[in-house]
Amino acid sequence: MSTLITGIGELTTNDPELGRLTDAALVLVGDRVGWVGPAASAPPADERVDVAGRAVLPGWVDSHAHLVFAGDRTAEFEARMAGQGYAAGGIAVTVGATRAASDDELAANLRRLVGEAVAQGTTTIETKTGYGLTVEDELRSARIAAGAADEVTFLGAHLVPPGADPDEYVALVVGDMLDAVAPHVRWADVFCERGAFDEDRSRAVLEAARARGLGLRVHGNQLGEGPGVRLAVELGAASVDHCTYLSAADVDALAGSDTVATLLPACDLSTRQALAPARALLDAGATVALASNCNPGSSYTTSMAFCVATAVLQMGMTVEEAVTAATLNGAKALRRTDVGRLSPGARADVHVLDAPSTTHLAYRPGVPLTHAVWRAGVRSR
Amino acid sequence: MSTLITGIGELTTNDPELGRLTDAALVLVGDRVGWVGPAASAPPADERVDVAGRAVLPGWVDSHAHLVFAGDRTAEFEARMAGQGYAAGGIAVTVGATRAASDDELAANLRRLVGEAVAQGTTTIETKTGYGLTVEDELRSARIAAGAADEVTFLGAHLVPPGADPDEYVALVVGDMLDAVAPHVRWADVFCERGAFDEDRSRAVLEAARARGLGLRVHGNQLGEGPGVRLAVELGAASVDHCTYLSAADVDALAGSDTVATLLPACDLSTRQALAPARALLDAGATVALASNCNPGSSYTTSMAFCVATAVLQMGMTVEEAVTAATLNGAKALRRTDVGRLSPGARADVHVLDAPSTTHLAYRPGVPLTHAVWRAGVRSR
Repeated sequence: MSTLITGIGELTTNDPELGRLTDAALVLVGDRVGWVGPAASAPPADERVDVAGRAVLPGWVDSHAHLVFAGDRTAEFEARMAGQGYAAGGIAVTVGATRAASDDELAANLRRLVGEAVAQGTTTIETKTGYGLTVEDELRSARIAAGAADEVTFLGAHLVPPGADPDEYVALVVGDMLDAVAPHVRWADVFCERGAFDEDRSRAVLEAARARGLGLRVHGNQLGEGPGVRLAVELGAASVDHCTYLSAADVDALAGSDTVATLLPACDLSTRQALAPARALLDAGATVALASNCNPGSSYTTSMAFCVATAVLQMGMTVEEAVTAATLNGAKALRRTDVGRLSPGARADVHVLDAPSTTHLAYRPGVPLTHAVWRAGVRSR
Repeated sequence: MSTLITGIGELTTNDPELGRLTDAALVLVGDRVGWVGPAASAPPADERVDVAGRAVLPGWVDSHAHLVFAGDRTAEFEARMAGQGYAAGGIAVTVGATRAASDDELAANLRRLVGEAVAQGTTTIETKTGYGLTVEDELRSARIAAGAADEVTFLGAHLVPPGADPDEYVALVVGDMLDAVAPHVRWADVFCERGAFDEDRSRAVLEAARARGLGLRVHGNQLGEGPGVRLAVELGAASVDHCTYLSAADVDALAGSDTVATLLPACDLSTRQALAPARALLDAGATVALASNCNPGSSYTTSMAFCVATAVLQMGMTVEEAVTAATLNGAKALRRTDVGRLSPGARADVHVLDAPSTTHLAYRPGVPLTHAVWRAGVRSR
């Protein structure tokens, strides 16, 4: 089965040779991109969809989300908007609700949020464990996550469970918990932050995960400067996420590394932090990704378009930089080359906007601009 | 024809006696609200719609938009995001495109934007002339606006057309132009700002309009402190819009008046200005409204939800203050008592959210949360 998408007013391919095309067409063959080029020379296909001058780009690659949970934290959000500060400890509320939920409830909530994300143009989504914090609950979270997310990350080191001894908990994470969960995930992550895991404990978790063959990700520098970025770069993590408070040395370290700086602007806003220093990172030469950080505590949104608009309107990124950050660089943060781009052989993840250009993502903030989405060749909207 | 909406998890009525209800129901009779109260005592109706625990609020009242135009200003937006400042003169680009467009083109663009707004929960929308700037083009703009907007405002004093003498142009506005347009509009407005109309010329326009029986609105204090707010309060304008840069005296004047301070956060962000001082206005006792300012130059969004989320996340407003500002206080800015509230006798303008509470409008920024909309009793989504 092949589909010719024609009438593309502006096509963002993220392919270094193809670049950005106007008056373009795209052929999807099964779950892959088969052909990309000028509309006038498009090959035939089984079906033809004319998008009437709309802009087309790769589906969003949302490389940071926490979607296996139960409950919400509306009251905590309201308190924060009334002036109460954000603290990592709120995670424990979601841990309690998640442990109490059935597998079916967790899976249904995950599917709801993935569906909501796909309806807004997200075609690759990562999700983490981290609201279980027991061997059994982390394992079931990983298994449930794998049922709907593209990438699954073990985040047993999300928070030291209330009442637990930090060192004993880390021993559990790097021992039985990692043993149980590692076969079901590709990545491990740690919340390296005051109130969560300090540098030594974060290092212990990451080194143990690396020894098991897992790729590394780090939550770092969310609530203040700290060791997260330095540790992520030193250990060759694929990404360090948040990066809200960076020293000049952190920026330099990221610029000189393969570690992606993944910024989470909806989280920065939802916790009333500063917005991450995107411009400084880009100017230094770091690779910047944007992700939703969808979770019920600090950033309860699936809207990558909101992240892109915020990055452009408030973080000094150009539209092109922001779109690249939310597609190609999200893929880099997941060490994926098959998504985040529309070149022959890539996964057929296509986002059609109700607009003539990607600029409208920032020019028209808040307006739902997703017209159509193909995820791995399947049209879902 | 009557419709019972039941299963309402949270009902925001904006009625001082009814307040906010849980487990509520609503009956629409024709284009009016017929009954509001506890679900258990709801009267029968011709049809019944169960909203399954969702939040219901009055449709947004968007009291400031400029929807009669042609063309877009993508290039100017991109230049601004690359560091170029916003200046009022960009309006002239839209004036050129608008004059060149046919009536049908203008009406179709207006209907597209009103439809987009309604699909996002807006049920009352004001729109202005101001991209014609000749007697003939202002008159046709007013006539076209009346075909789709709830309230129409004469904004001949939007910009002195390039090449025109300011005093001669004001004489035209208060003379032949006002004569032609006044019968077709309820309101007059002036852009009192550097680069547009100074205090004396603004006063001349407003006094002439008032003498013709039109209600007054003012664009003021958008790009810096200035006489706009003072003038609006002195002349009893229904609203002064923008209010981005206010002196302490301006805040006091608004607090002591019936003039609504209408804030336009999407415009502030899209022009890289500061966000308006909502908290100072509220703390002083001023009435604050939120509106989209939808226009192709400085704020090309129809999303009232984006304005509400920005107000809560970044302007220090509570969710309740922001929702009130985007509904009841938008109605006050238009001196309307029949919209912006859900009490018996009000217009049947109902917004059902895909969320259990209005808090989710800020808790879930960017996520399209409009589940259903009735505008004057007609379900449009």
